[in-house]
Amino acid sequence: MDDALQQLMALVARLPGLGPRSARRVVLQLMKNRETQLQPLLAALQRVDAALSACDICGNLDTRNPCRICTDPKRDPALLCVVADVADLWALERGRLFAGRYHVLGGMLSALDGVGPDDLSIAQLQARVAGDPPITEVVLAMNATLEGQTTAHFVAEALEGLGAKVTQLAHGVPVGGELDYLDEGTLAQALRLRRPLA
Amino acid sequence: MDDALQQLMALVARLPGLGPRSARRVVLQLMKNRETQLQPLLAALQRVDAALSACDICGNLDTRNPCRICTDPKRDPALLCVVADVADLWALERGRLFAGRYHVLGGMLSALDGVGPDDLSIAQLQARVAGDPPITEVVLAMNATLEGQTTAHFVAEALEGLGAKVTQLAHGVPVGGELDYLDEGTLAQALRLRRPLA
Repeated sequence: MDDALQQLMALVARLPGLGPRSARRVVLQLMKNRETQLQPLLAALQRVDAALSACDICGNLDTRNPCRICTDPKRDPALLCVVADVADLWALERGRLFAGRYHVLGGMLSALDGVGPDDLSIAQLQARVAGDPPITEVVLAMNATLEGQTTAHFVAEALEGLGAKVTQLAHGVPVGGELDYLDEGTLAQALRLRRPLA
Repeated sequence: MDDALQQLMALVARLPGLGPRSARRVVLQLMKNRETQLQPLLAALQRVDAALSACDICGNLDTRNPCRICTDPKRDPALLCVVADVADLWALERGRLFAGRYHVLGGMLSALDGVGPDDLSIAQLQARVAGDPPITEVVLAMNATLEGQTTAHFVAEALEGLGAKVTQLAHGVPVGGELDYLDEGTLAQALRLRRPLA
């Protein structure tokens, strides 16, 4: 096989969720559909590479810096949602669930992967919460995993004494969830955090 | 989310084996690793788009035309292997299994997908087999699926009377296969095509 092709396939195979076989299928489909797939993909990658950067304030990816969310006057500047990754920010934005602004940590604490507090934007978060405009509430929106919860606790401690209320996402039975299919951990949390019927 | 990003994700999500969620992960990983992943991928796509084309003789993808396989003097010009797709050619080449040349049909007959004989390079195959250099054997290497076998039979009929022997890949128990896990069709074929012990 041609060198250029082989190199392209090796690069595609390194993308998350893809392996050597799916990379071959991807590359072949691109080669078969040059005008409708390969060339538009090339153009989109170039545009994104040239125009996108991480927002200096929150870490969101945008063509503007500061990003559209940080500069949106309709969002509550006193309300801050801390997420591990831009993907989590997108997940919350897809549902238009949050009317404040964000702070992207850039990952989760993980001894296994060698991610320590200095690898995350915790100092910047402290500066934002202590600075201006005043932040009244910080919502920690981390995965309900060991790493996510470790990170949430670490961030909560780092924000102590800065004057903002620190909250986190509720844990419990997911909407549509059937008890019989839920893991013990979720059931234990849901039972511990039980509430009076409204 | 930014328009450029959204467009890129829509394009990535159309690739085989990817969906909206995996497209988001792919794009995020590319954005996080611009120098090591995004830019090399861009360069490789550009190179492939600029340099690669389908071989006029066999349909293989290469930077040369005619391709390296068609011009390789060490390959037997009298032996032709017909495959549906370039991916199948690559599969045979990975194992260095075939010492002749190839003919890529460009797909398989499929009433469901609206692929008829005119969409495949069958006329070109007939011209090759009838032309010069003389072809003594045509090996049909199609998938052992309904569509693959329909295509194989169609091609075999189209080659009738052109003087070449037409053969096809053997069907049977795959190497390492356990009978208990094989489907009925494979077992039936393996039994029907049983051979004396060598």
